[in-house]
Amino acid sequence: MTRTAAIIGGGVIGGGWAARFLLNGWNVTISDPDPEAERKIGEVLANARRSLPALSDVALPAEGKLRFCASIAEAVTGAAWVQESVPERLDIKHKVLAEIQAHAPKGVVIGSSTSGFKPSELQQGAVRPGEIVVCHPFNPVYLLPLIEVVGSDGPAAATADKAHEILTGIGMKPLKVRKEIDAHIADRFLEAVWREGLWLIKDGIATTEEIDDAIRFGFGIRWAQMGLFETYRVAGGEAGMAHFIAQFGPCLSWPWTKLMDVPELTDDLVKTIADQSDAQSGMHTIRQLERIRDDNLVSMMRSLKGRNWGAGALLNQHDARLKALEPTPDFARPLPTLDRVVPISWTDYNGHMNEARYLEAFSKASDRFMEIIGCDAAYIAAGNSYFTAETHLRHIDEALAGDRIRVETQLLSAGGKKYQIFCTMYHQDGRLLATAEQVLIHVSLQTRAATMPPSDIADKLARIAKLHAALPIPEGVGRHVGQPR
Amino acid sequence: MTRTAAIIGGGVIGGGWAARFLLNGWNVTISDPDPEAERKIGEVLANARRSLPALSDVALPAEGKLRFCASIAEAVTGAAWVQESVPERLDIKHKVLAEIQAHAPKGVVIGSSTSGFKPSELQQGAVRPGEIVVCHPFNPVYLLPLIEVVGSDGPAAATADKAHEILTGIGMKPLKVRKEIDAHIADRFLEAVWREGLWLIKDGIATTEEIDDAIRFGFGIRWAQMGLFETYRVAGGEAGMAHFIAQFGPCLSWPWTKLMDVPELTDDLVKTIADQSDAQSGMHTIRQLERIRDDNLVSMMRSLKGRNWGAGALLNQHDARLKALEPTPDFARPLPTLDRVVPISWTDYNGHMNEARYLEAFSKASDRFMEIIGCDAAYIAAGNSYFTAETHLRHIDEALAGDRIRVETQLLSAGGKKYQIFCTMYHQDGRLLATAEQVLIHVSLQTRAATMPPSDIADKLARIAKLHAALPIPEGVGRHVGQPR
Repeated sequence: MTRTAAIIGGGVIGGGWAARFLLNGWNVTISDPDPEAERKIGEVLANARRSLPALSDVALPAEGKLRFCASIAEAVTGAAWVQESVPERLDIKHKVLAEIQAHAPKGVVIGSSTSGFKPSELQQGAVRPGEIVVCHPFNPVYLLPLIEVVGSDGPAAATADKAHEILTGIGMKPLKVRKEIDAHIADRFLEAVWREGLWLIKDGIATTEEIDDAIRFGFGIRWAQMGLFETYRVAGGEAGMAHFIAQFGPCLSWPWTKLMDVPELTDDLVKTIADQSDAQSGMHTIRQLERIRDDNLVSMMRSLKGRNWGAGALLNQHDARLKALEPTPDFARPLPTLDRVVPISWTDYNGHMNEARYLEAFSKASDRFMEIIGCDAAYIAAGNSYFTAETHLRHIDEALAGDRIRVETQLLSAGGKKYQIFCTMYHQDGRLLATAEQVLIHVSLQTRAATMPPSDIADKLARIAKLHAALPIPEGVGRHVGQPR
Repeated sequence: MTRTAAIIGGGVIGGGWAARFLLNGWNVTISDPDPEAERKIGEVLANARRSLPALSDVALPAEGKLRFCASIAEAVTGAAWVQESVPERLDIKHKVLAEIQAHAPKGVVIGSSTSGFKPSELQQGAVRPGEIVVCHPFNPVYLLPLIEVVGSDGPAAATADKAHEILTGIGMKPLKVRKEIDAHIADRFLEAVWREGLWLIKDGIATTEEIDDAIRFGFGIRWAQMGLFETYRVAGGEAGMAHFIAQFGPCLSWPWTKLMDVPELTDDLVKTIADQSDAQSGMHTIRQLERIRDDNLVSMMRSLKGRNWGAGALLNQHDARLKALEPTPDFARPLPTLDRVVPISWTDYNGHMNEARYLEAFSKASDRFMEIIGCDAAYIAAGNSYFTAETHLRHIDEALAGDRIRVETQLLSAGGKKYQIFCTMYHQDGRLLATAEQVLIHVSLQTRAATMPPSDIADKLARIAKLHAALPIPEGVGRHVGQPR
């Protein structure tokens, strides 16, 4: 049965949570007194729909149902998860949490998006304190995987474990914080950096743009894939971490940071920052910046999938979970071998999916066909594989970023070391986009030479070939480039 | 004439500088008293050679000459750039700088890699203080573009400008720091974060791995593309930066960060950190971690090239500079349309360049051919382009990450809205890797329908077609998939 997540408090964070759950197949209810909530959440959802599915190389589950509710009571009734994202005032949070617990099913997970309060503070006066944990997300919630889960050192330990499982299921990276602490972990770093940034601007050392450049052309790129300690471990070299600390440690007592003190946020300083920020980014609207940011994040996170590292490894794990749910195909039909969304990073200067990405999609479809016949990751790790020897592609229609595409694969022939397939790509709207005819050859990954496949693979191929021989021969088989129709 | 950069002080940082200059066509001399210097720099160079060229979509200049010198005097003689990367002690730096200035040409740029000292401190007692600036890099220097250039507010202002120009020429991002300050800009942030990290570990809130995860699954990914202020500008939404500060500002006086105080680096704390780091990363050697990091960085920075943003925009600008140096091709021969290195992100589970990346390379070659006939970026921006309708690919041999490949393009026919080309891909060692036969059609980007090309493009095509008709027809033209040889 489809579960329901109740989002209490909309806005950018609540909207991001709604999108995460909705696009991962949950039903979502929303309660927010803001008369603009529906519009605002609609905008976040539009951003999410154009970016989150593109992180995945398989199809996400069918979207859940979204319902705006007139009250907290209505929203939380029957919910399996309640996410509170109301303003950062403890009295407001206590009132809202009390109302949630008055109407939500017992045993529900109540996650708070608070960036500052500790679970023990939120739990004060609650009827069931053990249901309340901190689940602190990062903007944009629909793309960034990190969630700080705080509360495992108190009465909500079991709820924290349950939260961990559910968050993993919607593709996130729950980080269990061992002990509750003001501002959890990440915001302590962000605040330290923010405070130092204010000093640099106040003292005229750097503008907002220069500070941003000092981050994104340097340590920011490092931190997208290894954090502080792993980076320094590498910098320390063979001598190791203790050596690195011995070298770097003394600097801590040098008078570098000004953080012992807080700069006063005078009107002048605020104006300086706002003016510098306008000069830096004012040529883009906030909506444009959001899309630039999301397209950058999707492209970078997808590139880490290729390395199977960090956020990319997490995405691969999530894809594997989704793939495990796919039904066994009917071998008497062309086999469904791909169902996915075109990511922005697959498009080119012509504004459409680049020709090479058509082949990337067909290549992934070919991988899926290989899996079906038994040439899966384990088989390849054991030292054999199929290599593509030859491909003929026809580009019949365009696909754009965000379009959902699917591929069907028909086995034309199989025998000896080879098999030949014909793949057809369709748009979600039914349009024929492209075809690919390919010959693949079984090889040893040690000798890199052609070898006979083992009998179980040969048998599977023969079985499919026999069934597919009864199918009509697709239009375009055997075509050469430039051949008249 | 090839210019020379003298690297004074090797190690990871000096080695990274050597690689940057060398792989961008400079000669490099090195002076380092460490008897292990040649081995250590050789290791850094090996890392750089397998990653830096893969950031580029064109060929880098031919590598310069590398020479190890017995003395500073020998190394700096005739140098156009001297980079000092000796230990962080002011007395050592003064001694080395004096020796450099005793032998280097007058007017040379002397950059110091110091992370802590100000130019005015380095310049104390110098015979020509105006030659000495801080050029502070980030590890790995051969990949991360940021260089903090400090000194423009003192006697070395002209040298700082010269440094800016030279650093841009070797693909870096010089950041002019307006006023000298201890630790410049980025290290002030890094130190603040490091200090807070030590507290979190000391207090048992998080391990090194958990802290790294809090960074790389959250704000670290954001900071690889937008820094602190642009990120918060987006978070602030339409209300703008001043509104964001009004919201966030008060938190600064909350007791979140512990930075008012420095944790004592007791033996116990150092051991805790070293042990946690072993548990987190000990399954990889430092050499493995370096390669994982570099492959991650190359993949992410390449993905930002696709968005033309941040470090990716910088790389595109550098490619454009290199491309402008390419000679006009001889139209009577097959046209050289690609010369590049295979990046790690183009390889797949079979350990070689993925089939789709063969087509990506051919697609880039096709773009180059389009440029040659006049269908360049400006022409496309004006609303017309060529779309590939059909492709036949043969994969004849394998290419691996780091391999240099080139493509030659022969025009088979041109007329009306179409032209047909045959492209051949070679490995640097001469091996034939693949062929591609393609038909392209001239289209209007408004109507997305086929249209006649303008006469200047048609004439250029006709001229090349006439010349190429005299060339032998390549083996494989007109072949269909599975056709016997």
